[in-house]
Amino acid sequence: MEINKINDPQTIPEPTLRRLPWYLAYLKLEADKGESYVSSTQIARAINVSASQIAKDLSLVNVSGKTRVGYDVNELVDVLENFLGFRSAHRAFLFGVGSLGGSLLQDRGLSQYGMEIVAGFDVNPEVIGTEINGLPVFGISEFAQKQAEMDISIGVLTVPVDQAQKVADKMVEGGIRAIWNFTPFRISVPNHIVVQNTSIYAHLAVMFNRLENQEALKK
Amino acid sequence: MEINKINDPQTIPEPTLRRLPWYLAYLKLEADKGESYVSSTQIARAINVSASQIAKDLSLVNVSGKTRVGYDVNELVDVLENFLGFRSAHRAFLFGVGSLGGSLLQDRGLSQYGMEIVAGFDVNPEVIGTEINGLPVFGISEFAQKQAEMDISIGVLTVPVDQAQKVADKMVEGGIRAIWNFTPFRISVPNHIVVQNTSIYAHLAVMFNRLENQEALKK
Repeated sequence: MEINKINDPQTIPEPTLRRLPWYLAYLKLEADKGESYVSSTQIARAINVSASQIAKDLSLVNVSGKTRVGYDVNELVDVLENFLGFRSAHRAFLFGVGSLGGSLLQDRGLSQYGMEIVAGFDVNPEVIGTEINGLPVFGISEFAQKQAEMDISIGVLTVPVDQAQKVADKMVEGGIRAIWNFTPFRISVPNHIVVQNTSIYAHLAVMFNRLENQEALKK
Repeated sequence: MEINKINDPQTIPEPTLRRLPWYLAYLKLEADKGESYVSSTQIARAINVSASQIAKDLSLVNVSGKTRVGYDVNELVDVLENFLGFRSAHRAFLFGVGSLGGSLLQDRGLSQYGMEIVAGFDVNPEVIGTEINGLPVFGISEFAQKQAEMDISIGVLTVPVDQAQKVADKMVEGGIRAIWNFTPFRISVPNHIVVQNTSIYAHLAVMFNRLENQEALKK
């Protein structure tokens, strides 16, 4: 396997960025089983993406397989985890310690993928001053001061939908550079702010619709 | 506003299905403010999707605005909530009551979007027999029997990645028709099974990458 200088990250298209974690998940399982090499054909068979697509995606992170033996599993795991940012600790504040927000504060999975939530903010006096999973919950009015102390890049947005834009504005004003938006509301932010929309409820709508189609086919 | 017979759901493309909940979220806020009519231009301005795209998406669910006054807000909320399946109770079993799975059992948001998780399954003797948020947690070996009693369509997959395929196989074997896959593993299932992949960690990778690009631009 040859590993060259990592490409300018700007050039990696989003569909590739979304597939790379699938390859990584599969490769980690193979590494656990003690496999040393895998071919793109093996990955393809396991995860239902074409071998040529896999080879193309991996070439974008400057990894190529060796003729006949394929990809070195452990090296590829290293390259992908580093490339995807899962080995760095990206610190984040979370806004809205309700049902979903409180759950995310307790999700140990996030830290395995490079995300370290360091504090939550809310307006509810019953949660302000408490700790969840060892993480402090502050009043939203304390955000400016905490941000001045900690200079956090990422804000997780889990407030009620009618507060989404207002809190997003406050985050941007305070110097947050990337917003992970879990609300179903499409927030407006300046161009230089990164927004990742993860509305799990939109996924529900797709699933319900597809399920209904399948049930209709049976009739 | 004219509401005709709902189109065959099969004909609705996934990008449209993903945008409809954004329109719905905005419309509900407008309804709360007491607005009676909105135009596609107003929706467009608020959520950053072109007015023509919005009109096209809404025509796919057989809704068209009235000349000059636009869409009737309350009617459109009704149509969208029904169309998206958010008003029905889609019952689901959850597999893997770990950190993320336990969080989902506690998320009150899901039931507002038509998803009713009725029980969890796990292999950990410490959680089997307990209740989370009033929902029972059974041993995975009890699944076949519970499924025979309840005939559940949807399975939420929140097991560790190395168990994902095995548990998905078991779900399909037991008669689950749609799998909401939260693991980063690409499961293989028969064609008639609906799979919705929601790997929040893949979204993290995209966000980290975009953030890095932005920080690089500043230097």
